Amino acid sequence: MFFDRPRDDFRGFFYLRKYMLDFQITPLNRDLSAALRNKIDQKTKPLGALGELESIAHQIGLIQSTLSPKILSPHLVVFAADHGIAAEGVSPYPQAVTAQMVHNFAAGGAAINVYANLNGWQLSIVDAGVNAEFDDVPNLISAKVAKGTKNMLCQAAMTETECKQAILAGAEIVRSLVKEGCNTFAFGEMGIANTSSASCLMSIFGGFPLEVCVGRGTGLDDAGLERKKQLLLQVLQRHALDASDDPLRILASVGGFEIAMMVGAMLTAAENKCLIVLDGFITTAALICAKAINMNIQDYCVFAHCSGEHGHRKLLEHLHAKPLLDLGLRLGEGTGAALALPLLQAAVNFLNEMASFESAGVSQKC
Amino acid sequence: MFFDRPRDDFRGFFYLRKYMLDFQITPLNRDLSAALRNKIDQKTKPLGALGELESIAHQIGLIQSTLSPKILSPHLVVFAADHGIAAEGVSPYPQAVTAQMVHNFAAGGAAINVYANLNGWQLSIVDAGVNAEFDDVPNLISAKVAKGTKNMLCQAAMTETECKQAILAGAEIVRSLVKEGCNTFAFGEMGIANTSSASCLMSIFGGFPLEVCVGRGTGLDDAGLERKKQLLLQVLQRHALDASDDPLRILASVGGFEIAMMVGAMLTAAENKCLIVLDGFITTAALICAKAINMNIQDYCVFAHCSGEHGHRKLLEHLHAKPLLDLGLRLGEGTGAALALPLLQAAVNFLNEMASFESAGVSQKC
Repeated sequence: MFFDRPRDDFRGFFYLRKYMLDFQITPLNRDLSAALRNKIDQKTKPLGALGELESIAHQIGLIQSTLSPKILSPHLVVFAADHGIAAEGVSPYPQAVTAQMVHNFAAGGAAINVYANLNGWQLSIVDAGVNAEFDDVPNLISAKVAKGTKNMLCQAAMTETECKQAILAGAEIVRSLVKEGCNTFAFGEMGIANTSSASCLMSIFGGFPLEVCVGRGTGLDDAGLERKKQLLLQVLQRHALDASDDPLRILASVGGFEIAMMVGAMLTAAENKCLIVLDGFITTAALICAKAINMNIQDYCVFAHCSGEHGHRKLLEHLHAKPLLDLGLRLGEGTGAALALPLLQAAVNFLNEMASFESAGVSQKC
Repeated sequence: MFFDRPRDDFRGFFYLRKYMLDFQITPLNRDLSAALRNKIDQKTKPLGALGELESIAHQIGLIQSTLSPKILSPHLVVFAADHGIAAEGVSPYPQAVTAQMVHNFAAGGAAINVYANLNGWQLSIVDAGVNAEFDDVPNLISAKVAKGTKNMLCQAAMTETECKQAILAGAEIVRSLVKEGCNTFAFGEMGIANTSSASCLMSIFGGFPLEVCVGRGTGLDDAGLERKKQLLLQVLQRHALDASDDPLRILASVGGFEIAMMVGAMLTAAENKCLIVLDGFITTAALICAKAINMNIQDYCVFAHCSGEHGHRKLLEHLHAKPLLDLGLRLGEGTGAALALPLLQAAVNFLNEMASFESAGVSQKC
């Protein structure tokens, strides 16, 4: 299995062997491409009239290697964790909100509960590293690495051992859901100050100047935004990393536990030929890290939406990704991904359920 | 009831009195505006973090005059009709496809069947004026005005009596569905060559040069597109109408039976304080005609998507409308509107179901 890797993947391969992490992600098998295109074109509609939904149907067919793909037991996993950099005031909300929101998720009162419920996602909440105990919270997956990362302004956010632990935890959660029959995943996150980590990851992995990557997060004013930029510039200067460095070292230095778990979860989902529905800025930052580890992962991704958070549009462009929704959402939690499921279902259903010109007796183009 | 009309509406009022058609559409009552805004802002999310969904929730709350709006028995009505101008070869598909697609709708094989079914719309199909008999087709609403319009290149597409009949038929269909408890409507259409009518309506009501309004419809090639433009230029020259003319005369001259029925249906939906979910190019062309009759109608409209058909983006800009989806769809039938219902439901549900900062014990912004 090690021999059919694309060459571009050697770097990630090298580093992951070193850490004994390995993900076997095959590029899409395109054998069915023409047959899928033909099936789409024979549906009773003008050629191409379902726009982006036709591309999505084609992609999901290739991922599942079938002309009749299905979305089975779609599962949205929200990873929550705290960030040491929050102590620097990079968010207008106190760190305690991370834990409070975990309680809100568990009680069913958050936006992601409403949207998962509305659109048929199964929802799991994971404590990836929140600065609180949750002994009394039912249905919470405990995978706490530590009570928040260290302050990345002063040191690495986590050790490489912690980073590896988080990746493996995310991988294990996905692996168990795949065993239960899930073939479609979305990942969400909650973590006060995690746009700071995502901005640094975007800047390092994407080679963007920091100001392109930093936004208002949950609602910084102009002065707060300027301060966040200055702080994150110091973070980047301290760690002095670029895209040629070990992706695990980058992730450990400026990432977060929820981000590292998403990296492991995404890589494992792709390894199992599952569809991955990307949410907003933080999850896309996790993806560029995962892509540095295994570039084939993006074959398995659809992009639910373009967030209102400043850096996301550029990050999507960098990935040549075309988001399905563009509604100015900037909530995280996986809400954008949750909202996109009916569109993915629409892509699959037209392919499976619409009549063809022949079966419906409809005349074709003159 | 006649006295509280806004002044701008006098023109439509005058013409409609003349034809004994009248629609009582009140502008939105904004008394609850601040209370709705406050309810939205107290939900456990950063201010404004649900983007466009917050605006939609606010609008639906105002339409229904409640802080807890509900989408009840959403109904999508597809109007089908034929067009005399089809004889000029303005579409690459033969006119027979209109009737064939009505059979496809009745059999459940079209895209709109799949999407109505997926997203919980009740679906009705109306024969507004197809050039065929449908004695054997079950569950089809027969409101046929004639077997297609006349060729608008040579004469008015319909008489003013036929136009009025179509408007009243659309109105009656909506009225009966409102009695059954529906408070949310979408309208779709099927009619080979109806982008030609829609382009002329856009040009006349919107004051646009024709080339801005004419597109490839179901898939004209470059030569076909050029020919369509030349033909429609002749149509406009023959009828010599502009936005100051009687809207009914404009609609009768260059419209279609399905478009006229949508005009009556939309006006009646707004009169009954129902939400109207606009689909693509043809339905938006019906809306500008309805708006010329009663300008208040747009208060009740949300715009599901921007179509891939050439004129639609400009038409939406003309209406200052922000579409929810932009997926390059250009199928008609109401498919774009059908796909947007989960987003409207998401707007309503977060307002009704999410916890507030207070109820969830979550800290607010520092």
